[in-house]
Amino acid sequence: MAGTRSLLLLPGDGIGPEVMRQVRRYIDWMARKRGIEFTVEEGLVGGAAIDAQGVPLTDATLEKAKAADAVLFGAVGGPKWDGLGFDMRPEAGLLRLRKELDLFANLRPAKVFDALVDASSLKPDIVRGLDVMIVRELTGGIYFGEPRGIEDLGNGQRRGVNTQVYTTAEIHRVARIAFELARKRGNKVCSVEKGNVMESGLLWRQEVTALHRAEYGDVELSHMLADACSMQLVRNPGQFDVIVTDNLFGDMLSDEAAMLTGSIGMLPSASLGAPDADGKRRALYEPVHGSAPDIAGRDMANPIAMLLSLGMALRWSFDLHTEADMLEQAVQNVLRTGMRTSDIMQPGMARCSTSVMADTILRELDKLAA
Amino acid sequence: MAGTRSLLLLPGDGIGPEVMRQVRRYIDWMARKRGIEFTVEEGLVGGAAIDAQGVPLTDATLEKAKAADAVLFGAVGGPKWDGLGFDMRPEAGLLRLRKELDLFANLRPAKVFDALVDASSLKPDIVRGLDVMIVRELTGGIYFGEPRGIEDLGNGQRRGVNTQVYTTAEIHRVARIAFELARKRGNKVCSVEKGNVMESGLLWRQEVTALHRAEYGDVELSHMLADACSMQLVRNPGQFDVIVTDNLFGDMLSDEAAMLTGSIGMLPSASLGAPDADGKRRALYEPVHGSAPDIAGRDMANPIAMLLSLGMALRWSFDLHTEADMLEQAVQNVLRTGMRTSDIMQPGMARCSTSVMADTILRELDKLAA
Ligand SMILES: [Mg+2]
Ligand SMILES: [Mg+2]
Repeated sequence: MAGTRSLLLLPGDGIGPEVMRQVRRYIDWMARKRGIEFTVEEGLVGGAAIDAQGVPLTDATLEKAKAADAVLFGAVGGPKWDGLGFDMRPEAGLLRLRKELDLFANLRPAKVFDALVDASSLKPDIVRGLDVMIVRELTGGIYFGEPRGIEDLGNGQRRGVNTQVYTTAEIHRVARIAFELARKRGNKVCSVEKGNVMESGLLWRQEVTALHRAEYGDVELSHMLADACSMQLVRNPGQFDVIVTDNLFGDMLSDEAAMLTGSIGMLPSASLGAPDADGKRRALYEPVHGSAPDIAGRDMANPIAMLLSLGMALRWSFDLHTEADMLEQAVQNVLRTGMRTSDIMQPGMARCSTSVMADTILRELDKLAA
Repeated sequence: MAGTRSLLLLPGDGIGPEVMRQVRRYIDWMARKRGIEFTVEEGLVGGAAIDAQGVPLTDATLEKAKAADAVLFGAVGGPKWDGLGFDMRPEAGLLRLRKELDLFANLRPAKVFDALVDASSLKPDIVRGLDVMIVRELTGGIYFGEPRGIEDLGNGQRRGVNTQVYTTAEIHRVARIAFELARKRGNKVCSVEKGNVMESGLLWRQEVTALHRAEYGDVELSHMLADACSMQLVRNPGQFDVIVTDNLFGDMLSDEAAMLTGSIGMLPSASLGAPDADGKRRALYEPVHGSAPDIAGRDMANPIAMLLSLGMALRWSFDLHTEADMLEQAVQNVLRTGMRTSDIMQPGMARCSTSVMADTILRELDKLAA
């Protein structure tokens, strides 16, 4: 891995390009101040690719994504492309990347920065210090299973069907990621399903248990029903370290957990694939927020989720933990000064632009590196 | 419907009998003070039925349930019956009732009493006045669909399958209940699915929309994706009036919404079936809390959820809205005095027993009826 580190940047649409610009600045900073070099390429995705290249993701860009050590993705979509068919929507660019890179594990941290504890709709005592990682299976389950479809039964009656399917291999590979993550964090995994009423959930529980017994006995494993988990995230989210769950439950629970923090403009995510012969996983990193076309181009967007997505890439794709820590610390320190972009503005704080927020984070990094 | 009003009480196990005893007292009170008479029968269910009759629900009790205007159900289960097989578990009694009475709509109110606003893990400003009704489809969807099961693929690999199925008729009948409920409340229905990735969800959205256009145009209808709903319940639950959704999403969202209130000991629920020739629906009412075997027989349980379950029965099965309102008002007033059972105890309040709580509510009813 040493020697070359390659990144493909796909800024996308809306606020994507302006937050990605701040990522470039941190990459430059690492080269200048830390002697850490990246080979950076950039490509089009989403509406930007539709406009320039006729499709939301070209084969050439896909090949670049496959060749890169990590992909950084901004955001896609906007009213300009709303009328297009399913395969020509900007979102199809992201779906194609996930599918072709076989990114089966979605990592969704829900972390509360001390300075933003009041942004949550939950009481400060409940969410202070919150740091949960949800690992969501991303390429299987009911969103992809066959048979599926809507059938006409006659007499004005129709029937809609979807199929939830999981195999041992699919469960093991995502559970493995959860256990490995837990080892670098609080060493606890909570596996979530509905094994009391779904056989696919029962299989999930049994296979996670078997894998745990065989290879991860040092990690504390618990099991929880998905409805109980949706309750416990509200009641006492601090009890969780890593949660691993299927595509559908992960979809619901990761969004619920994200909202506990009160500030989606702060949250990064990662999607990981299988390790190659060198143990290196395909990976795509992106902010949880969308393209926010209403504020695009106005230097108003919060660049932090995008910067922290780079932070996740530094950590998981490049083992650059010091640089990831520094970035998170810099963000923390700047928030503590009271500087806020509009999306996280609070009474008594100072409202700032995208570029001022990024400038300040870079100056803070200078201090931390000094 | 006038003339006879019949109720079957099934207290069940654990704290079930002691909270049901308080229900009897309110029934007696209505006869004495309001001239409203009920024919009341009582039966065994759950562990109590297993011990006395060998099964968690006898055919004779089931027939009584079918004949009654409404069933009031306490709670079932306890460590004594933990080792029994699937069909002989106490819970099987409840499942049989739901199935045989075809109770396809589960009504789960999430309501915050002013006096308990601090019990929530959410900020008081977010949950004050909260009054959401979740209507969950209860007899269809992925918990019941075929094919289902776990298949051995050889080589240590297995495959778990479940099937989500909904028909037009199933969607219409539950949506109808949601629209009719909304008309008596805030007149707003939010229909929740994942139509963006599931055909069964797309059918759900289309059929709810068609029914709305044909018969309920006066009700405000909106649609939301299930993951967005799990976020919005945390961010701003006050935006919702009635939510209608399928069995699985309803399972997750009703529990999440219940936890927003911070006090599950306060929450009733109803399960409704199809209307008969007289327009009367089969109905079962029960508290959301369980049988709490650890505190059973100690006069410690909170009787309010059970009493409010009777309140729901008065409202939905007997059109006794005044008596339902009075009961809710009495509960509200008693909470305002600072009286609390252990489960909702807060600093500065007065801890009381099950019977004292019920005594006080009855005295308050006397005042309200005076
Ligand atoms: Mg989601
Ligand atoms: Mg549930």
